[in-house]
Amino acid sequence: MSESDPYQFQHSSLLVVISGPSGVGKDSVLRSLKELGLPFRFVPTMNTRARRPDEVNGVDYHFVSTEQFITLLERGELLEHALVYGDYKGIPKQPVREALASGLDVVLRVDVQGAATIKRLIPQAVFIFLTTASEAELNDRLSQRKTETPDSLRLRIATAREEMQRVPEFDYVVVNRDSRLDDAVQDVIAIIRSEHCRVQQRVVTL
Amino acid sequence: MSESDPYQFQHSSLLVVISGPSGVGKDSVLRSLKELGLPFRFVPTMNTRARRPDEVNGVDYHFVSTEQFITLLERGELLEHALVYGDYKGIPKQPVREALASGLDVVLRVDVQGAATIKRLIPQAVFIFLTTASEAELNDRLSQRKTETPDSLRLRIATAREEMQRVPEFDYVVVNRDSRLDDAVQDVIAIIRSEHCRVQQRVVTL
Repeated sequence: MSESDPYQFQHSSLLVVISGPSGVGKDSVLRSLKELGLPFRFVPTMNTRARRPDEVNGVDYHFVSTEQFITLLERGELLEHALVYGDYKGIPKQPVREALASGLDVVLRVDVQGAATIKRLIPQAVFIFLTTASEAELNDRLSQRKTETPDSLRLRIATAREEMQRVPEFDYVVVNRDSRLDDAVQDVIAIIRSEHCRVQQRVVTL
Repeated sequence: MSESDPYQFQHSSLLVVISGPSGVGKDSVLRSLKELGLPFRFVPTMNTRARRPDEVNGVDYHFVSTEQFITLLERGELLEHALVYGDYKGIPKQPVREALASGLDVVLRVDVQGAATIKRLIPQAVFIFLTTASEAELNDRLSQRKTETPDSLRLRIATAREEMQRVPEFDYVVVNRDSRLDDAVQDVIAIIRSEHCRVQQRVVTL
């Protein structure tokens, strides 16, 4: 077919950034997307803290030494990074590059600050803000975790309130309502499917 | 809730314009969307020609007299219109307004020229270009209709070739591959679902 064949539709791999306040269910949505067997590559965040017993390396996070982390940081090989309670976390560029090159969509899970950083670097990524339907729902969900002290709960709620102000920086907002996880998952699936139909494809270069 | 509640997400009715060359399957896609019971209102094109035996008034077209048509045209009550082989067809504004006001999405089926006209008037509508996967597929499909003379077939193919150049004016391109109608229908459903998640909602005023 010639270069100018009008039926030659471009098909680019997408970089999909799933973000939102702590407690809105980013991990649950991701788990469902994986369980449904969708053809995408999830690139976990690198983390220098110690792995917790319930976490799987390469699934929840990619656990690395501080030295490994700093080496990548110095080489400019991180999409974004942050210091969290004395430990570093960040998203490495190389596995994102490899997945995109293989033709797969790449999904990242990052906090709202990290998503904003990635947007400055790669505005053509697809930015999804996941949220609860209300602050009350977020409060209930964080309380049910039972790992939050009253102070950390207040901190998370206050942070979420600030983060909600950044919704306009995102492309899509997906509401993960109580007991309606599947609706949120189907929204994300629809967003990815529709983005592949866009005439102006979002070509990512890293 | 206060006006500034960040969880107060706007939800607007969409105006979805399904277009594409003759023979790509616009009617088949629409029929499937209806059969699936999706919550949208289809506003048929008004047509001044005589109804054919296999056509249902208000479903395939809304058949009206030339006088009725011209009255609406004079009042500026048509979204777009065209003269086709001596008969008028066009899309009336009022049923679109009513459906949008009721909170439903509105779906229109128009030719490529009509879609371009609507885009000038309502750029915030969602424009979907339906196509076959290749010109050969379009040729096969039009030939199978058995209603086309060799000349009319050539005319339709040449017109389609021109219309394909206008894909960049649309938001989405959906490929209706041979024997894969359901894929095209699911693409359209995903587009509508994802557009409802957009942070920048496409508010239509008519």
